[in-house]
Amino acid sequence: MVGPGSPARGELFVGDDAAILRPLVGQVVVSTDVAVAGVHLDLSLFSVTDLGYKAVAAALSDLAAMGALARALVLAVTSPPGTDLEALHEGVAAAAAASGCPVVGGDLSRGGELAVAVTVIGECPGAGAVRRSGARAGDRLFVTGPLGRSAAGLRRRRAGAGLDDPAVLAHRRPRPLLAEGRAARGAGAHAMMDLSDGLGIDLHRLADASGVGFSLTSVPVAEGATADESISGGEDYELLVAAPDGRRLAEVFAARGLPAPIEVGEVVADVATRTLAGRPLERRGFEHRL
Amino acid sequence: MVGPGSPARGELFVGDDAAILRPLVGQVVVSTDVAVAGVHLDLSLFSVTDLGYKAVAAALSDLAAMGALARALVLAVTSPPGTDLEALHEGVAAAAAASGCPVVGGDLSRGGELAVAVTVIGECPGAGAVRRSGARAGDRLFVTGPLGRSAAGLRRRRAGAGLDDPAVLAHRRPRPLLAEGRAARGAGAHAMMDLSDGLGIDLHRLADASGVGFSLTSVPVAEGATADESISGGEDYELLVAAPDGRRLAEVFAARGLPAPIEVGEVVADVATRTLAGRPLERRGFEHRL
Repeated sequence: MVGPGSPARGELFVGDDAAILRPLVGQVVVSTDVAVAGVHLDLSLFSVTDLGYKAVAAALSDLAAMGALARALVLAVTSPPGTDLEALHEGVAAAAAASGCPVVGGDLSRGGELAVAVTVIGECPGAGAVRRSGARAGDRLFVTGPLGRSAAGLRRRRAGAGLDDPAVLAHRRPRPLLAEGRAARGAGAHAMMDLSDGLGIDLHRLADASGVGFSLTSVPVAEGATADESISGGEDYELLVAAPDGRRLAEVFAARGLPAPIEVGEVVADVATRTLAGRPLERRGFEHRL
Repeated sequence: MVGPGSPARGELFVGDDAAILRPLVGQVVVSTDVAVAGVHLDLSLFSVTDLGYKAVAAALSDLAAMGALARALVLAVTSPPGTDLEALHEGVAAAAAASGCPVVGGDLSRGGELAVAVTVIGECPGAGAVRRSGARAGDRLFVTGPLGRSAAGLRRRRAGAGLDDPAVLAHRRPRPLLAEGRAARGAGAHAMMDLSDGLGIDLHRLADASGVGFSLTSVPVAEGATADESISGGEDYELLVAAPDGRRLAEVFAARGLPAPIEVGEVVADVATRTLAGRPLERRGFEHRL
């Protein structure tokens, strides 16, 4: 059902049993993410609007990680009586608008707690979506930006920092890197994923899926973050990219006006090699986000 | 994120940031539905498996109502510790398999209550999806089967009937009428919707969306159901169809081996005319399902 709180935009139809989209080009990419108040976001520190924003941004980040163009999203919300649904929707709409992705439908139900499930639909015209399983020995590894900022923001907020503190803002209003993901796909990236749970666990996942190991030289730490936060903080939503040709990657990013990816190491054939600066990198990261 | 409990099937890839589907043909149709334990299904009377089954069937029914082919679905589940997720998934998988629609992804989060959000993606090759707004004066109105069976099943279950009672089965294992929806689309239906909340409210919605009235002659009552249940019971998931040519509708259904739609009345130009057997049909139906 297409329910209340589901604004249309552009080409799409709502208010019917289902939303109708114009034909999608090429591969269709689909992902879903659920955000629960008190589990994914502490509502004593952040707002319902932030919860809506983060739910949408996290889902769109999964499309970014495939190199896809975001085409539409739908919401399923359960909420206790008294929930400020307009505030929630404000966050949803802002995150959707920031990525140019229309909200085409939704369903709303009463429930004992506030939960927002976001399903995103994207397309990969031309070349195929970039999976996490394609990394090969010799590929260079890159991240799209310094890490640990979101975790630092949460720490700072807990210590009393305001909502407009830059690190706090990074935590509550993450930016899905859709343009960066498409640029990496266009530059021939072999494998990609988004760093939702932290490099210390997500890089292991990419290596596992690809059947390879890795040797990191260093990890770029965001301003104000600790080294530990850069490894295991999570929710940065920067992209992790394995690409055979770092120069081509840099060129495509530059041509599209995007910040240059930061090289962090290389992919190695031995699956047991999992090192940072020559020492074993333990598998650690956010298992649950809070 | 594509999380646990998300089996692949056929052409689709899972275990990545997102699922990848082969290109979709024609219009893409998307809908989402959330089912909450205790709100949409009483777990003292029914099982967690039934909740999973109903959540998927209700979502697929929205695709049926557009005349679409179901192509894929994703799940977002929140659940308290101790939830039997395998039992839930059994219901999800059974409903998906019954409609030939693969589960391509999902996300799982802990939460205080069990909620299942299902997003379905379908396609309408060739002619466009059938909306609820296309009914025109002179169209004949049809339903795909007798009504009230699901509500009768809930009533019988509350009175102690077993889970295999036919009406109880209709309540806990509804069948999305995807083939019937495509047949109605193929036969040139002007408008269609699924009777999720009961004819007494859904027919008004179709009339509102189309800017028309209706004159019903009679409503077919399912065996064991009351007249009231047939009007306002809800959750039958039979399709309501407005079509200009009843003979063609019957022919297409017959050619596809489907039971003949049952004529219930006609669409009239006057939006204020909303009658059953000459008397006003009040707007009434399930506002919340339980």
